[in-house]
Amino acid sequence: MKNETIVGKNPVIEALRAGRPIDKIWLAEGLRSSQLGPILQLAKEQGVVVQYVPRKRLHEWAPDEVHQGVVATVAAYEYAELDVILANAKAKTGLPFLIMLDGLEDPHNLGSILRTADAVGADGIIIPKRRSVGLTSVVAKASAGAIEYVPVIRVANLVQTIKSMKDAGYWVVGTDAEGSSDYRTLKYDFPTLLIIGSEGKGISRLVREECDYLVHLPMEGRVTSLNASVAASLLMYEVYRQRNPLSLN
Amino acid sequence: MKNETIVGKNPVIEALRAGRPIDKIWLAEGLRSSQLGPILQLAKEQGVVVQYVPRKRLHEWAPDEVHQGVVATVAAYEYAELDVILANAKAKTGLPFLIMLDGLEDPHNLGSILRTADAVGADGIIIPKRRSVGLTSVVAKASAGAIEYVPVIRVANLVQTIKSMKDAGYWVVGTDAEGSSDYRTLKYDFPTLLIIGSEGKGISRLVREECDYLVHLPMEGRVTSLNASVAASLLMYEVYRQRNPLSLN
Repeated sequence: MKNETIVGKNPVIEALRAGRPIDKIWLAEGLRSSQLGPILQLAKEQGVVVQYVPRKRLHEWAPDEVHQGVVATVAAYEYAELDVILANAKAKTGLPFLIMLDGLEDPHNLGSILRTADAVGADGIIIPKRRSVGLTSVVAKASAGAIEYVPVIRVANLVQTIKSMKDAGYWVVGTDAEGSSDYRTLKYDFPTLLIIGSEGKGISRLVREECDYLVHLPMEGRVTSLNASVAASLLMYEVYRQRNPLSLN
Repeated sequence: MKNETIVGKNPVIEALRAGRPIDKIWLAEGLRSSQLGPILQLAKEQGVVVQYVPRKRLHEWAPDEVHQGVVATVAAYEYAELDVILANAKAKTGLPFLIMLDGLEDPHNLGSILRTADAVGADGIIIPKRRSVGLTSVVAKASAGAIEYVPVIRVANLVQTIKSMKDAGYWVVGTDAEGSSDYRTLKYDFPTLLIIGSEGKGISRLVREECDYLVHLPMEGRVTSLNASVAASLLMYEVYRQRNPLSLN
């Protein structure tokens, strides 16, 4: 995590209202509370520290922007670069394992998947830039800290990314109820890219067509799908357990 | 699901505000909207149908209560009885399998666990009457319909319930990080009561002391626990997969 700044009265109010994790709010000395709108109230409610500094210091931080005497420093969640992650995965001992989330929408699900990814030692999570939840404070909270440890990569085009990973030696395992095998039948003894579909719609057609294997979770009941983070976690643990079998004494 | 009624102006307003799934609101003919407070507005926002009926019909529905001309019919989620569920589990083919949730707090987790319980054909979920999320509309939504199929039993005392289930031939498997075995080592070839702890605190001490076995999920990362519904689902699928092995051709 690194810091970035939010500059100006209204942007800071919006960030507070959105619940972004703010480190500190810096106000120019001499500002009256009547000039600040609900900033002090919101900051108090959320336990954000407010500090008064000379106005020229705010000029230094935000030289090209109209700061109105108000600057907030916020934690920005950083995304990783795919080529760096693939190089790291190749360099380590053990088989590479990445997970691609095709259009996940619920931040709690992403947070929960990050926790499991950390637990199974996955090398990273790939999400698309559009039509997907990104790294927000809700995701961070649901991840119970895993957001700090599991690299998340945002890519413009999932299909292009899959193709380049295939070229790099990855095998692509998608999840689909139809025409697929029980998830236990596959041996995950290759560099694996596991693809999980969105909550409502599953994997998109173009992504599905790129899969080398399609697997499903056996289900006996009347409901047709599991929670997306549960399904993802069951598949992630299947890769883990096959690669880390019990030592039978 | 069966219907129950909420009687009187303020109780109906509270139910609307709480987001309870209301079938219909019945108003006495002749009531003016100024007598109803925000009922019509809230009903409109939530898409609840409002119907005017003769006042004497409301007297029939709520003979002993002051209805003020306002009655709502709501869906009540029914709890099951433990002895009925245990008898059903004993009568069916296959080994009985129940899950006890020791103090789960998040309704999304309960909904998600119900989905997995349906998928693995579990016989029922046991929750305590106190200090636990119950069956609410949020749970129903997160369960994607599973709330209609998986019996949920509420009991006054978890330890007493465990003791009586042991007498009935169940073996009790709890989850605990310390002093326990990898969850794959156990053979779940007995009537199984699986116990899952709460999000923050795990299994309570008195419940832990009643467990015949303690198991844990292997975790390689730096985060110390998985999402509660994910952990529950991994354990539930372990019971399922051992009882339903792949047929090797």
